[in-house]
Amino acid sequence: MPTHDAVRSEPAFLSPLAAFPAAIGRIPIRDLAPQQPENRWPAASYLGEVVPFEATVFREGHGLLRVEVVMTSPSGTTSRYPMRLVGSGTDRWRRDVQLTEQGAWRWHIRAAGDDWASWLHTADIKIEAGQDVELVFASGAALLGHSKVKAIAETRAALLDVQLTAAARLARAHDPRLAAALATHPVESLVTESPRQLLRVERARAAVGSWYEFFPRSEGAKQAKDGSWISGTFRTAARRLPGVAAMGFDVLYLPPIHPIGQTFRKGPNNSTVAGPDDPGSPWAIGGADGGHDALHPELGGFADFSYFLGQAAANGLEVAIDLALQCSPDHPWVTEHPEWFTQRPDGSIAYAENPPKKYQDIYPINFDNDPAGLRAEVLRIVEFWIAKGISIFRVDNPHTKPLDFWEWLIGVVNERHPDVVFLAEAFTRPPMMQSLAGAGFQQSYSYFTWRNTKLELEEFFTEISGRSADYFHPNLFVNTPDILTEFLQFGGPAAYKIRAALAATASPSWGVYAGYELFEHVARPGSEENIDNEKYEFKKRDWAAIAKSGTSLAPYLTRLNRIRAEHPALAQLRNLSLHWSDDDSILVFGKHLDGAFTPSGMADSLIIVVNVDPHSVRETRVHLDLTAFGLEPGDSYGVTELLTGAEWTWGEHNYVRLDAFTEPVHILAIQHPIPATTRPVRNKGVR
Amino acid sequence: MPTHDAVRSEPAFLSPLAAFPAAIGRIPIRDLAPQQPENRWPAASYLGEVVPFEATVFREGHGLLRVEVVMTSPSGTTSRYPMRLVGSGTDRWRRDVQLTEQGAWRWHIRAAGDDWASWLHTADIKIEAGQDVELVFASGAALLGHSKVKAIAETRAALLDVQLTAAARLARAHDPRLAAALATHPVESLVTESPRQLLRVERARAAVGSWYEFFPRSEGAKQAKDGSWISGTFRTAARRLPGVAAMGFDVLYLPPIHPIGQTFRKGPNNSTVAGPDDPGSPWAIGGADGGHDALHPELGGFADFSYFLGQAAANGLEVAIDLALQCSPDHPWVTEHPEWFTQRPDGSIAYAENPPKKYQDIYPINFDNDPAGLRAEVLRIVEFWIAKGISIFRVDNPHTKPLDFWEWLIGVVNERHPDVVFLAEAFTRPPMMQSLAGAGFQQSYSYFTWRNTKLELEEFFTEISGRSADYFHPNLFVNTPDILTEFLQFGGPAAYKIRAALAATASPSWGVYAGYELFEHVARPGSEENIDNEKYEFKKRDWAAIAKSGTSLAPYLTRLNRIRAEHPALAQLRNLSLHWSDDDSILVFGKHLDGAFTPSGMADSLIIVVNVDPHSVRETRVHLDLTAFGLEPGDSYGVTELLTGAEWTWGEHNYVRLDAFTEPVHILAIQHPIPATTRPVRNKGVR
Repeated sequence: MPTHDAVRSEPAFLSPLAAFPAAIGRIPIRDLAPQQPENRWPAASYLGEVVPFEATVFREGHGLLRVEVVMTSPSGTTSRYPMRLVGSGTDRWRRDVQLTEQGAWRWHIRAAGDDWASWLHTADIKIEAGQDVELVFASGAALLGHSKVKAIAETRAALLDVQLTAAARLARAHDPRLAAALATHPVESLVTESPRQLLRVERARAAVGSWYEFFPRSEGAKQAKDGSWISGTFRTAARRLPGVAAMGFDVLYLPPIHPIGQTFRKGPNNSTVAGPDDPGSPWAIGGADGGHDALHPELGGFADFSYFLGQAAANGLEVAIDLALQCSPDHPWVTEHPEWFTQRPDGSIAYAENPPKKYQDIYPINFDNDPAGLRAEVLRIVEFWIAKGISIFRVDNPHTKPLDFWEWLIGVVNERHPDVVFLAEAFTRPPMMQSLAGAGFQQSYSYFTWRNTKLELEEFFTEISGRSADYFHPNLFVNTPDILTEFLQFGGPAAYKIRAALAATASPSWGVYAGYELFEHVARPGSEENIDNEKYEFKKRDWAAIAKSGTSLAPYLTRLNRIRAEHPALAQLRNLSLHWSDDDSILVFGKHLDGAFTPSGMADSLIIVVNVDPHSVRETRVHLDLTAFGLEPGDSYGVTELLTGAEWTWGEHNYVRLDAFTEPVHILAIQHPIPATTRPVRNKGVR
Repeated sequence: MPTHDAVRSEPAFLSPLAAFPAAIGRIPIRDLAPQQPENRWPAASYLGEVVPFEATVFREGHGLLRVEVVMTSPSGTTSRYPMRLVGSGTDRWRRDVQLTEQGAWRWHIRAAGDDWASWLHTADIKIEAGQDVELVFASGAALLGHSKVKAIAETRAALLDVQLTAAARLARAHDPRLAAALATHPVESLVTESPRQLLRVERARAAVGSWYEFFPRSEGAKQAKDGSWISGTFRTAARRLPGVAAMGFDVLYLPPIHPIGQTFRKGPNNSTVAGPDDPGSPWAIGGADGGHDALHPELGGFADFSYFLGQAAANGLEVAIDLALQCSPDHPWVTEHPEWFTQRPDGSIAYAENPPKKYQDIYPINFDNDPAGLRAEVLRIVEFWIAKGISIFRVDNPHTKPLDFWEWLIGVVNERHPDVVFLAEAFTRPPMMQSLAGAGFQQSYSYFTWRNTKLELEEFFTEISGRSADYFHPNLFVNTPDILTEFLQFGGPAAYKIRAALAATASPSWGVYAGYELFEHVARPGSEENIDNEKYEFKKRDWAAIAKSGTSLAPYLTRLNRIRAEHPALAQLRNLSLHWSDDDSILVFGKHLDGAFTPSGMADSLIIVVNVDPHSVRETRVHLDLTAFGLEPGDSYGVTELLTGAEWTWGEHNYVRLDAFTEPVHILAIQHPIPATTRPVRNKGVR
């Protein structure tokens, strides 16, 4: 096989016959990953994520291929990583790469004929058969050419050395020193490169974090003897921050902190009549005291807000605020910019409705009357809060606003402020939810709260850890002010442990709304939300007394967050593997991170076994695909149960007993001796 | 809801904030079909095909949508076809359109807010509830605007007519005359158009045809008393054409008709030594008499070839020839263009090999030494045969040549000769087979011959009739000179009926290699091809005597081809539906074409029931999804068994008895009374 000249994919040499435009290169390279569906927006990743780069690469005939992923970091360093076939005969090549720099990465796939490997394959067979011996060695020598690299030149000489036996000459072709030399001086041909791809790498918090949500007006709220309330403030709420931080949370999310409208203000339990002292829903934004760029006066002024942010930071907490693009009838925009709403024929402004239901406390925004003006104003508001120190926005109901608006807003904001993160609170049909993530939202709420059975969870975990992880990063909230599922209402304390453990281990981001740790489980009848919902009233929780009483789930949440902090495998989403049990309610899944990608250099492997039936004690056997953890089938290994500290020896098939009334969940860490997998050089490619 | 101005997807109005490029329009339109994977090449269709156009279209909030596919024919006529949701809540829209003009179609999806439908939905609820009555009617009137269209202006007046009851005013909004007027004068907003798509529509024969293969040298070959052979010629072979045509075949495919090499010529049964009278394999192309642009002298000259083509045409047969880009060592290229081959270090030319096996009769072409020269030569050869009257090329082993070569060749040839069809004879891994079809091959061989069990066939039929039909059109050959499967070797006559009936009904293209109708079933031991393979020797078949003996399958093949000709549903691939039986070997599938797309205007529906076990008599029940045939669940209907003429009454669940030793297959035509489905206007959209 002769050395081919490198032929690029552009058939420029064919002119004038080449009027026909080529859509494929000399070596076909197809179906690159990570990529969004339709390759419409760049895939999204985050600092520290281990991303499987994949492509289908094949060629005519039997010649072997070299396939690499070539990556250029945002700062301009280009590295090449060899890829491997995911399975013999698949034509699918893969390489896991950990992203170590925030920003826009450019990458592509580079394929070439591996002429040396092809020759070696042929030579092994023909020399063994005594076929064309001198021709074979002459071909090999020709491939190696007149290289000045010592190992290559020496091998070439040996191949041509008729004094040696054929076997000895062939052995020199297999010399590892030659292989090492060829790694940097490859014998290749037909070099073909895929089109350039873009990969957006966000800061880690965009996808990895433990979230806690509380209403600042409730923290430190006091009830007078006449039953009236004095609102909590940023100053009183700040006192709660050490407690939240102590549970190990990273992000504190505040519902809207703006003035609340008076007109059609909602009363307790979503009643349409509010008493004079009812505080109203924070999502009914805007009043005499201002709109989206103002603070609710009862919470304090900007100095107080700043103090709160400072205290949060001092406690290691980042504050997320709500971006709810809707207005109370009292919002300043209503009079200043009626064109941003829908006017009815009688000149009144259309309130929200789902006929015959009316939501008269809310005016939805019309994005189409003055899109330029409205975009400028929303951008101003976002910039306003960024200037105040906010860099995470939890976006309320983004699916009720145009998708192209979000694409534009997030694009423009991230261009100026790459650290700003947007979380989409969309519960709607899959195309909109996926497209919001695709168009820019760094995080998304998901259907996790309604996935409770083993089968539902297996399907859900498969979905979120599969190809959708190229752009969709779920934040698994266990509850919200809007969501208290039947599973929590009727599952007892076990349900709260089960859901927290699932959320904290399955996804790099999870979240808890205050009161979860108190097992608040009574719903407003006929609804799926808490009775006496905090959205419409103050809620006083005596955290100190509860902590003393020993009846809180806080220690459990604290332990979950500590496990998350100590196990880098839990900061990955794509590394989730499903395993098996003989019981319909015992869910088994794993999280594994190769030692090449951990700070310690040791593999990090967790086995999570969950009894998803909160009313039962279950004994069964679990069956593991040990290769998912870098082990071999049949291996024995030690495990540490991270919730209780127990230690056992496990294998492929293991007995478990999960008593929902004590511990419904095992989180087992495998005690890896030495990383069993091959160790690619950490974060380094060939330059 | 006010009338929105139409907002295009380009956010030009946002300048100077709009530096960020938009990838999505105001109304998101995603995942268009038909499309190839990656949208790398245009999808391919053929004249008469009914193509499902689909897209995922959705919007924020609850407003209703109008979605249309807009198609511009090659001759420049633009039509708009309304699409429908494939299912409530799916966001997936679909419209079946029959392609009626050969050439490049341009199409896109057009979406808009259906403001009138949204208003009507709200109005129905609010008027019923007595809510905002005058406001609702005023909004409706505002939507209708000051139209001069009579039905619209009258409705507007009625909506505002307070003398009428609310119910009467609402009734006017539902008036069919208004709906008709709005169909051409829509009340819509936010008009968004998808990017333009291309769809290549080939002539019908590119995807619909019955193929027959014979070796012209065998037809009319004579054996002398000394055992030596006198080759058949184009003139003697022409005598067989009426017989082939009488069986109902459309395409006659000839193995290579070029001079055959002498060097390392293969003898009978692929032996490496040929006797002096052995004719050699037609695929060992080239000798003293010429190469790919020459005729084998024993077959005749160009006048004889022209006579043969004329006789074929007179019999309604189109002739396909073989394009096998490989050479015998005696091919003129070997001396004239050694750069088109791979030279070994000793100056010799590399023959084909799969070490340690050698194929010394064949020199593979090297496509990389002089790609421009080689491309020009192959193009010259293809043009040469096109000039001789050939417009179908069956391409031998295209997967052993570069994909980008085929992309270029087929592209250039079809640009000049849109009627030319290439059939890919590739049996290799899926990415290459799919990419060959994607890059331009109009037809492809498939794995059909090795799909014999019910489960295998169900999976295979699902694959070929699914999304791959956007570009992959299989030709289901039942046998070839290379393929005599175990199923045929050991299945007896029933196997031959089964496979022919499957191929002829499942796919619009199918094929038979001569001898199949004679149940030739003895394989060379250890191989999957006929003993005394015709590739290496003459084969005399006395068609007239066999026909008289009554032992031929020809009448069965004739009947199958007649059924194909009479049932337009069989000229479609995507219309295949799978049904059920209680027996592991009784396969049930359907083919259905709506009356909107048939010449008669009547729906054409076939139910094919096959006993795929050729050694058994089976009785079972078959279960049909009658909606796949435009019927309702529970319907009764008459069926005609097209192989035997029997008539029965069938329903959803039916008894069958299939005796492999007499008739292993039912092909049932449903006796439709009146087309049960709604009748879209044939081939017409809204202009």
